[in-house]
Amino acid sequence: MSNNLALFTDLYELTMAQAYFDEEMTDDAVFSLFVRRLPPQRNFLLACGLDSVLDYLESLRFDEDDLAYLASLGKFSDRFLAHLRDFRFSGTVYAVPEGTPIFANEPILEIVAPLLEAQIIETFVMNQIHVQTVLSSKAQRVVIAAEGRPVIDFGPRRMHGIDAALKAARAFYIGGVAATSNVLAGKLYQVPVAGTMAHSYVQAHEDEREAFRRFASLYPETVLLIDTYDTLEGVRRVIELANTLGEQFKIRAVRLDSGDLLVLSRKVRRLLDEAGLGKVEIFASGGLDEHKVAQLVASGAPINGFGVGTSMGVSKDAPDLDIAYKLCEYAGTGRLKLSPGKPILPGRKQIFRESKNGSDTGDTVARADEQRPGRPLLEAVMRNGERLAAGRVDIESARAHASRQAARLPDRVRAIKPAEPSYLVEVSPELSSYQKQIEDRVRAM
Amino acid sequence: MSNNLALFTDLYELTMAQAYFDEEMTDDAVFSLFVRRLPPQRNFLLACGLDSVLDYLESLRFDEDDLAYLASLGKFSDRFLAHLRDFRFSGTVYAVPEGTPIFANEPILEIVAPLLEAQIIETFVMNQIHVQTVLSSKAQRVVIAAEGRPVIDFGPRRMHGIDAALKAARAFYIGGVAATSNVLAGKLYQVPVAGTMAHSYVQAHEDEREAFRRFASLYPETVLLIDTYDTLEGVRRVIELANTLGEQFKIRAVRLDSGDLLVLSRKVRRLLDEAGLGKVEIFASGGLDEHKVAQLVASGAPINGFGVGTSMGVSKDAPDLDIAYKLCEYAGTGRLKLSPGKPILPGRKQIFRESKNGSDTGDTVARADEQRPGRPLLEAVMRNGERLAAGRVDIESARAHASRQAARLPDRVRAIKPAEPSYLVEVSPELSSYQKQIEDRVRAM
Repeated sequence: MSNNLALFTDLYELTMAQAYFDEEMTDDAVFSLFVRRLPPQRNFLLACGLDSVLDYLESLRFDEDDLAYLASLGKFSDRFLAHLRDFRFSGTVYAVPEGTPIFANEPILEIVAPLLEAQIIETFVMNQIHVQTVLSSKAQRVVIAAEGRPVIDFGPRRMHGIDAALKAARAFYIGGVAATSNVLAGKLYQVPVAGTMAHSYVQAHEDEREAFRRFASLYPETVLLIDTYDTLEGVRRVIELANTLGEQFKIRAVRLDSGDLLVLSRKVRRLLDEAGLGKVEIFASGGLDEHKVAQLVASGAPINGFGVGTSMGVSKDAPDLDIAYKLCEYAGTGRLKLSPGKPILPGRKQIFRESKNGSDTGDTVARADEQRPGRPLLEAVMRNGERLAAGRVDIESARAHASRQAARLPDRVRAIKPAEPSYLVEVSPELSSYQKQIEDRVRAM
Repeated sequence: MSNNLALFTDLYELTMAQAYFDEEMTDDAVFSLFVRRLPPQRNFLLACGLDSVLDYLESLRFDEDDLAYLASLGKFSDRFLAHLRDFRFSGTVYAVPEGTPIFANEPILEIVAPLLEAQIIETFVMNQIHVQTVLSSKAQRVVIAAEGRPVIDFGPRRMHGIDAALKAARAFYIGGVAATSNVLAGKLYQVPVAGTMAHSYVQAHEDEREAFRRFASLYPETVLLIDTYDTLEGVRRVIELANTLGEQFKIRAVRLDSGDLLVLSRKVRRLLDEAGLGKVEIFASGGLDEHKVAQLVASGAPINGFGVGTSMGVSKDAPDLDIAYKLCEYAGTGRLKLSPGKPILPGRKQIFRESKNGSDTGDTVARADEQRPGRPLLEAVMRNGERLAAGRVDIESARAHASRQAARLPDRVRAIKPAEPSYLVEVSPELSSYQKQIEDRVRAM
């Protein structure tokens, strides 16, 4: 896989850049990144992906290999390719911190940069904020449903590619997931790694007892997977092992991965308790999502933690967001388009979030220079292509921020059911009037 | 992003490998990769991702940095880490060629290798076959719906991460997509790249006429996007431009990206034709999937090509497959598990596809050494860790294979509606009896 991502862009970004270059359209543009509508199954989104965007903007370079490929397409002038050879991102980025809850039509990020620069970064910036926000938002729902029980990421095998699986582990951790099974993500992002054992280990041994005995002797505090052949037989074999080992038995938990998890967890709990193994916990996995987790928790299933894979890993119920990166100002003039159902709020903006007694009550999207009640959410994270302190937030701080900010949301919004009424987001009168003014200007063209 | 993907694995793969190492379980294992059930909206899947798997297996190495990280976890012995330092994949891989239609419970790939080797590659192998098969299968549906009109991949901005977007461009091309907007994918995989212009280009100019005139002067044969402000006004401005430029006017097409595409395409077609611009084609995009494309085609919409983004890019209606990589033999003995709803066919297998008059009629999954009617689909693509000729198939050949193989499927199976009855897949009597024998053995443990 390529490390140089300068060409990770849609072809039209570069043909437009060639045109801007020829036309000497070098003024600053403002592009705004926002989600037009939330999926019906999301009351809010958890902004994520900024760190990857800033890494990319700092290191964006076209190398000779890239330029040779572009030249081979026959669409670019030598002068333009020479310009790309010296390309550096020199703009300013305003963003909400990673782990901030956001709503429809609220800018997650705004970029102020010469038009050509702000244009060619579109594809990468959208891609990363999109996937990481999709995944952190889904994960936080699962974490909320688990009501304090740890949730472990088991998704790498069915996520969409290597990059998604790595970024997911990070986004999930920010969203409150306790650990990932993904070793490379652990190494790259300092996320805790965790894991148990697979059916293949049990199958490869001549019998299940032998598999349990061997694995426990190597990893005394491990989690044993008990459903390869028969869950209740499996737990009996764990109990036999405890009887054999006595004081040496330190198995931390058993894992259920199939069948009716509520019924089985109760039976397994009873068998363990009757054997004096009250300390051995029950860990459940297998096709879980936030709704199944919530149901198990509500039913009082004696489950101490959850391994969640595919449904969280591909955000199965809402794998995409209606995310847009739109030009909203060029050369000092607000810009928008009139395509039906796709409004743009012109100019640079700010989000003000109001609260009452420590609980957030609603947001107003305003022009950037307005003073309004509530705390402003967008802050400068990069200036002239260089990261500012606010653009260097470590993963633990982002996780803590996400948890604190989610706790401030009204209960109905934080819930996994659709919020009724939904969280209030308004546009300030000043921004509305500016939008009207720009619309009139465009219609008069 | 890391180039070294040895640690792209679930933690338990490595703890199990440590256990196999300590227990001297060095015999060969057979793991089978298959999809347990097709999503209800898929009549078949288009196998894809083998090339990435073989690349990975050839180059898999643990570097010192990886070993230091593993050592820091406190779960691995020095002897085992030294073993990983010298790790090379030495196994044999059997697979169906990329672009082969496959069905539930049919092995896409079987790996024969020492247990430890076959175990630790699980996560990567599943991840890549999964995402690429998900995406190629979805894309082929869109291509079938377009009935010969070109389909262009517009999805990179909303696909799940960089790797998915790159692999998608390749998988889509194999599935019959004509080109991608993703420049890096074009460079890496020699997929044709294509693109038009964005709303931002039109917005950044003082008016739409100026934008069209400028872009057409730089790229005379381009596609002009006409819905930024008003689609019908937009096409009138294209016609004005044609009148002004006369012989110089060579615009290839206009693009519609919002509104009612059927109604607008008819009106735009009429306006173009009345202006003597019968050669200017209409290209449509905006929230398309195979169903919308099929409907436009069935309604006779005068649309010459489709740009398809998010829905294809995340396979929105079926973003995941119930894919499994399961131990089915160890040390010469068939293996399975008895977990409810998750059967495993033991031992190494072959798929025989029967046909009549050039049309495929049904498959039989059999033991690998059986001789049965029909053509065998699995072939050796790697032996002793080295690629065989059958493992070196270029992308154009894979694309041609996919197209030929899909053409052999019964019409009801190739259709985008659910096939009734579904394609017939049987298990051979010999394999059934072997499965029964192994089940009895396991139950008697």
